[in-house]
Amino acid sequence: MRTLIKDTVEKIDQEVEIKGWVRLKREHGKIVFFDIEDRSALIQTVIFSKNDNFEKAKNIKPEEAVYIKGIVHARPENAVNPKLITGKVELEIEDIEVIGKSETLPFDMGGIDLKLELPTLLDFRSLTLKHETQRDIFKIQASIAEEFRNAAEKLDATEIFVPTIAAGASEGGADVFSVNYYGHHAYMIQSPQLYKQMMVGILERVFTISKAYRAEPSVTTRHLSEVTMMDVEIAFVEKFEELLDAVEFVGSSIVKNVTEKHKNIFEKLNIEMPLIPNSIPRLKLREAQEIITKRTGRDLSKEMDLNPEDEKEICAWAREEHKSDFVTITHYPTKKRAFYTYPDPENPEYSLSYDLLFRGAEILSGSKRINDYEKLLEVMKQRNVNPKNFGMYLMAFKYGMPPEGGFSFGLERLTMKILELDNIRKAVLFPRDMERIDERLSQLNPKAEK
Amino acid sequence: MRTLIKDTVEKIDQEVEIKGWVRLKREHGKIVFFDIEDRSALIQTVIFSKNDNFEKAKNIKPEEAVYIKGIVHARPENAVNPKLITGKVELEIEDIEVIGKSETLPFDMGGIDLKLELPTLLDFRSLTLKHETQRDIFKIQASIAEEFRNAAEKLDATEIFVPTIAAGASEGGADVFSVNYYGHHAYMIQSPQLYKQMMVGILERVFTISKAYRAEPSVTTRHLSEVTMMDVEIAFVEKFEELLDAVEFVGSSIVKNVTEKHKNIFEKLNIEMPLIPNSIPRLKLREAQEIITKRTGRDLSKEMDLNPEDEKEICAWAREEHKSDFVTITHYPTKKRAFYTYPDPENPEYSLSYDLLFRGAEILSGSKRINDYEKLLEVMKQRNVNPKNFGMYLMAFKYGMPPEGGFSFGLERLTMKILELDNIRKAVLFPRDMERIDERLSQLNPKAEK
Repeated sequence: MRTLIKDTVEKIDQEVEIKGWVRLKREHGKIVFFDIEDRSALIQTVIFSKNDNFEKAKNIKPEEAVYIKGIVHARPENAVNPKLITGKVELEIEDIEVIGKSETLPFDMGGIDLKLELPTLLDFRSLTLKHETQRDIFKIQASIAEEFRNAAEKLDATEIFVPTIAAGASEGGADVFSVNYYGHHAYMIQSPQLYKQMMVGILERVFTISKAYRAEPSVTTRHLSEVTMMDVEIAFVEKFEELLDAVEFVGSSIVKNVTEKHKNIFEKLNIEMPLIPNSIPRLKLREAQEIITKRTGRDLSKEMDLNPEDEKEICAWAREEHKSDFVTITHYPTKKRAFYTYPDPENPEYSLSYDLLFRGAEILSGSKRINDYEKLLEVMKQRNVNPKNFGMYLMAFKYGMPPEGGFSFGLERLTMKILELDNIRKAVLFPRDMERIDERLSQLNPKAEK
Repeated sequence: MRTLIKDTVEKIDQEVEIKGWVRLKREHGKIVFFDIEDRSALIQTVIFSKNDNFEKAKNIKPEEAVYIKGIVHARPENAVNPKLITGKVELEIEDIEVIGKSETLPFDMGGIDLKLELPTLLDFRSLTLKHETQRDIFKIQASIAEEFRNAAEKLDATEIFVPTIAAGASEGGADVFSVNYYGHHAYMIQSPQLYKQMMVGILERVFTISKAYRAEPSVTTRHLSEVTMMDVEIAFVEKFEELLDAVEFVGSSIVKNVTEKHKNIFEKLNIEMPLIPNSIPRLKLREAQEIITKRTGRDLSKEMDLNPEDEKEICAWAREEHKSDFVTITHYPTKKRAFYTYPDPENPEYSLSYDLLFRGAEILSGSKRINDYEKLLEVMKQRNVNPKNFGMYLMAFKYGMPPEGGFSFGLERLTMKILELDNIRKAVLFPRDMERIDERLSQLNPKAEK
């Protein structure tokens, strides 16, 4: 009967059976130590040369999956390791069996840090993910998704599952993956945007976690070909501020709850707990630019957006002036946003759009949407979007679409930002980019005939 | 300030503002009734000809989104409608405004049932989804996903996000959608199987909700080109029975919790609450076939699987003999299952595989997996699966993969089964099949050059 490693502390002086992976092996002549880890915790185990299984134990390799039978001993007071859940005990091995063999590792996986260059980290992804630093990233990612859903449910939104194969390219045609769909042209969606909009005409408030695909031919630290979007859309919006309230609630709830739940991981990484004020500062783009100009002297009067340097500066301002790691920027120029964005009635050059910035970068983007069918047709024409490919979308606006809006996070981008990773590929289990589908494209199948 | 419709019952004799859709409009000369629904409930509203806004109200169309200001009246005792949350009140309209226009509906959306042929149901999907019968389906679907996650979390599994673009076709090459990936051949995954297996070598227990794609050129009531898979995988499996316990726990928890939560919907649809015994009957395929032969006289000794008729029969047996709507069938022939399936050591012609059947059909499928790298290479060769396209998968088995197994549900199939729908397309918001991407393919873009 297996005992989870975290429960060994309750079984001092008892015989237990555990299963897990060998994270570290240290040989000291007549003693061998193994750090063994399962999903619950890590424990130090030891075997002495007097044991009949000592020679067998000496052959066991790091990262092998093992079964161990042994006795739990309390550690002497001065040998307690406060950093481990099991720091008060040690397991003396009676018997050990390999139940999942490992070849010799191509590099050292021991130690607190995994100092590998990105290509190696990804070339050996099935192995490198085993390192604690990597597993931590994806525990955080799971929590981000969970807290996103919790927050969306508190907004009374219903989860929906939207298609990822579509007939038209929602956000413009260039950077889209095409699929041969039973002999017809089809596309992988660039975002779940259009479907969540259609669905607020039906369920009023919806959320979805959906894949989105971008065939952007650029290799940067921030681009992925396949991303996970976390989207919310709500209808019967009375005031623009209601959308901002929803955005800030979801964004700050995720960050707050994830950092609290995984405090130990953030401490290990030396990442400060976030500053979240009761009221997150809100600025129109032009107001934000004026503040940045005052602080830096840079003239932004002709800029239509914030560049990465600007985003850092306005976040610094929010932190200094409002003790906030968040700041909401609204009213981006209408022509810089997607066709469905609602122009500000008071000044239609600007739109009822917003980004939520966290510690120097945008983590969420959204807007109020055009909900009038005729108006929507008009802007589609202006933007050269072919209504023929959006028949089902347009139909939703023909039959009673209330005022509505919403927002969208990239799960990987938020993971990257919250953990202060330097490359978005580190925030994806198996990243897809221009150069790689698990293995490097150059080592895979031959070029497709175009 | 908007009041949610369900809260109107607390505001008798008060003025309230509500927002919602017109579900039904009835004109009786000097009175017009509107049934108004928001995400919380439906309420009967009324306007009299003495009201200045009466003419305006008369022009309002079914399915329009409206704002209403009015007074909540208690209904007389004999006019209470026990079927409505708001059955004790009625709202007298003072003012009404259209906030989301509707064209005249192409067909009648009123009434309890939506009697439309499937092509019409799908051709007008953005509209037909508004009908209560359709919305109910997707409320159930959201609950299925939620209860799946709850059950997986109770198994201590971590949520993962797996890629959907892959270099090789996991379950054989024919029925796969190909993607032009920066000039290279790539495929949309046929299941998240391989990635969840890789991840149990890292996180021990994982679950995922992922899209999967099947380019099956067949139009049946059970085929979709794009499906939503709910997958669990667990490592350090000691006995086959542990997997069966996990399967039955997740399957029966979902069905139990969803039917309890939405009892009202199942009552409306006249669907009985499921019979879930403490211990779900388990049969080897050959045992199940013998029972079916005894009951029907059909000789199944040469059959390698249960056909739909057999599945119905064995479910009838489980209901009669064990008061169970579930039955678990194990030990399918090894060569009928995927390459990674673990052969039964006692008789390798049969495998450590299983299906969970519910009310006459399989809702879940899974197996123990081969976790030995050499053995896996061997079966891949036997099955003509090219290891070159599965390098990252195989790597996971080189470095300490413990004994493991798992299972997989189709979200749409389970929705269909639990609601006793006659076509799987009715269990998808926007189904993808050979003939349709929202609109019919024949009406869309020209044929792709192959």
